[in-house]
Amino acid sequence: MGRQGRRLIAEGLGSGLLFACVVGSGIMAEALSGGNVAIALLGNTLATGAILYVLITIFGPVSGAHFNPAVTLVMRLRGEIGTREALAFVVMQLTGGIIGIFVTHLMFDLPILQMSLKTRAGIGNWTGEFVATFGLLLTILGSVRYRPDNVPAAVALYIVAGYWFTSSTSFANPAIAVARSLSNSFAGIAPADVPMFVVMQFAGAIAAWAVGRVLFVED
Amino acid sequence: MGRQGRRLIAEGLGSGLLFACVVGSGIMAEALSGGNVAIALLGNTLATGAILYVLITIFGPVSGAHFNPAVTLVMRLRGEIGTREALAFVVMQLTGGIIGIFVTHLMFDLPILQMSLKTRAGIGNWTGEFVATFGLLLTILGSVRYRPDNVPAAVALYIVAGYWFTSSTSFANPAIAVARSLSNSFAGIAPADVPMFVVMQFAGAIAAWAVGRVLFVED
Amino acid sequence: MGRQGRRLIAEGLGSGLLFACVVGSGIMAEALSGGNVAIALLGNTLATGAILYVLITIFGPVSGAHFNPAVTLVMRLRGEIGTREALAFVVMQLTGGIIGIFVTHLMFDLPILQMSLKTRAGIGNWTGEFVATFGLLLTILGSVRYRPDNVPAAVALYIVAGYWFTSSTSFANPAIAVARSLSNSFAGIAPADVPMFVVMQFAGAIAAWAVGRVLFVED
Amino acid sequence: MGRQGRRLIAEGLGSGLLFACVVGSGIMAEALSGGNVAIALLGNTLATGAILYVLITIFGPVSGAHFNPAVTLVMRLRGEIGTREALAFVVMQLTGGIIGIFVTHLMFDLPILQMSLKTRAGIGNWTGEFVATFGLLLTILGSVRYRPDNVPAAVALYIVAGYWFTSSTSFANPAIAVARSLSNSFAGIAPADVPMFVVMQFAGAIAAWAVGRVLFVED
Repeated sequence: MGRQGRRLIAEGLGSGLLFACVVGSGIMAEALSGGNVAIALLGNTLATGAILYVLITIFGPVSGAHFNPAVTLVMRLRGEIGTREALAFVVMQLTGGIIGIFVTHLMFDLPILQMSLKTRAGIGNWTGEFVATFGLLLTILGSVRYRPDNVPAAVALYIVAGYWFTSSTSFANPAIAVARSLSNSFAGIAPADVPMFVVMQFAGAIAAWAVGRVLFVED
Repeated sequence: MGRQGRRLIAEGLGSGLLFACVVGSGIMAEALSGGNVAIALLGNTLATGAILYVLITIFGPVSGAHFNPAVTLVMRLRGEIGTREALAFVVMQLTGGIIGIFVTHLMFDLPILQMSLKTRAGIGNWTGEFVATFGLLLTILGSVRYRPDNVPAAVALYIVAGYWFTSSTSFANPAIAVARSLSNSFAGIAPADVPMFVVMQFAGAIAAWAVGRVLFVED
Repeated sequence: MGRQGRRLIAEGLGSGLLFACVVGSGIMAEALSGGNVAIALLGNTLATGAILYVLITIFGPVSGAHFNPAVTLVMRLRGEIGTREALAFVVMQLTGGIIGIFVTHLMFDLPILQMSLKTRAGIGNWTGEFVATFGLLLTILGSVRYRPDNVPAAVALYIVAGYWFTSSTSFANPAIAVARSLSNSFAGIAPADVPMFVVMQFAGAIAAWAVGRVLFVED
Repeated sequence: MGRQGRRLIAEGLGSGLLFACVVGSGIMAEALSGGNVAIALLGNTLATGAILYVLITIFGPVSGAHFNPAVTLVMRLRGEIGTREALAFVVMQLTGGIIGIFVTHLMFDLPILQMSLKTRAGIGNWTGEFVATFGLLLTILGSVRYRPDNVPAAVALYIVAGYWFTSSTSFANPAIAVARSLSNSFAGIAPADVPMFVVMQFAGAIAAWAVGRVLFVED
């Protein structure tokens, strides 16, 4: 298989494992936490941060480990990826990620096809997604620029923080917003609420790109 | 003592400490958590991830720090270890690991010899073990390939995630499945349920080996 | 934009994100924890430690990532920053930090302008802030001296510890004490209690500077 | 001040901060956890692991960051420190550590002088201390040998695991056993139970030294 094919597989497989972990750890955490949502969020946070470190470590050298259309967009704006490949990346992120959700439902003996009923909307949540994605992209741009070896830890820990300090718990990823609408569990989001999340995510990503162009430059 | 002997001791001692930590932290966590299973799993997760980082750091340079027949099998398939030594590794993993369980029971003033009554079966759990071991081996193969210095952190964090996102809580190790059947505690598994776990673990490991051969190659 | 301007933006933006995380994760944690303050503090701790690692990683190479007038003072005493720029740093820390608090209130659908009613005073708390800031600066001076690559992890983990072992939960930062007085939430502090916190913080920082001059030297 | 004096100060100051963190985070955790001991132990674990990483990072290059007579003994057996200095180290560890306990009581508005009433005895606990200290020294010897840069993380994470998988919660340090007998709080130990803890700790340390001599050698 050529380099191109391996990059697409890495995006699909990585998104699948990432989204499976986000949703699966949410299901596990909610089931075991006896109704204490903070305890559930601790388990969900720990698992998500941990898998991000792993997946960026092993797939970063292959595809860049985007797993996120907002990241792919910014990399396109920076000219680090072509338009054609960027679109293929997004297709793989969505496809791989949704398969990851289905496998997760299989693991937890749940119906494969679901639709979330969890409302996530309003000015607070939308501001949350803008801030969350702005911070995520700033983290990526800054750590890629100054400490490339620390990108896996920086991104993982940014999301650990984001799960707690943003009101929306930092989806920060249009593909995961779509995929999570297909799971009526802890990490779900009602399909009708996805579009505004996606808009705010792309807006936050572009804002970070603009700030990064000014801030993370050579002297 | 020769290099060969030191490698076997490392596998036995490392498996003993690892399995003792998995089972011991489960006993401690269950005893203190007041019936909230998510809190117990948080303690169990933290301890397991932490000891994995330690044991791979100190025994990795000696034996490769497998502590797991599924890992040893894949290393055999890759030609990094001979058949004879691979079998000796598995014997040491089982022997050392079971002694670790016995010492743990001694530490917690429990009967040394026990048998778990905890049922772990069904399509969900079996899929869980396949996914868990597939992901573990992918983590090992990818991090060994691209970031050898980060193998301890990557493996530790993969298992931290796996405890939460797989329905079976990621045994992902045939030797630990056998050893945990000898402890009727938080981390136990009924002996009758071990064989299917082992089958799914080897299947997941072999699948990861196949994917890794395609994905983690030179350009 | 020149280097000077970028340094000021880094201090303002970094302080904004840091203070937003401290206060936002406190709001989230308190809302979800069902009244168990230790669970809330776990979430608050995890988020704060994580964002500190991120922000020092990406802004350290730009401005030094002070985000804290006590740190800026010690850097001034060491001659690593001029008086003029030090004052500008403090203005940016306060301005950026307070804007961060306001954005956090917007995210959580709370009134933007608030004043904390939480009393934090007495010999115990004051000793706590002295110890907390003394330890923070010692951490910075020692890790900058011996392991510059590990400054982000060392500072983040020091604050993780400080949230638990100091009675005042380690504000350790005069700017964050001022900013947190503007949020009547988990992380708040009554405005009347801020001045003594600030005094103890500067005292602890100066003590650490003096100890560091003796301890962290060439042989 | 000469190198000798700085080494002694590092041992005293480091032990003071370490023991303050162990006891202080225990007091904080117990006070906030609403009677759930596992939640309290999570906070205590997080704080202890975090401060160990910090203190070994900043004091390791000065004194070796023993903070522990069992570590000093093994370093003496290895000939890395003279008898005279080893004894001075132990005096500083005890003195600094006990002052750390006193300052902690001051921070938490508690009587400075206390004596613990918490019984910690029996075969289980004693085996626990042997295993805990054996593992701690093995961690130090292995990581010093193969990954000196990772000693702070390895030791910190070993203790994180030890708090959960050993029945005695891994004191693993004769000086901290003595100091903790002077605090009638979460981390305390009745003075009458200290001697057997100390015996088992030295025994475990010596056993690890013997194993390390065989295992961690050049080929």
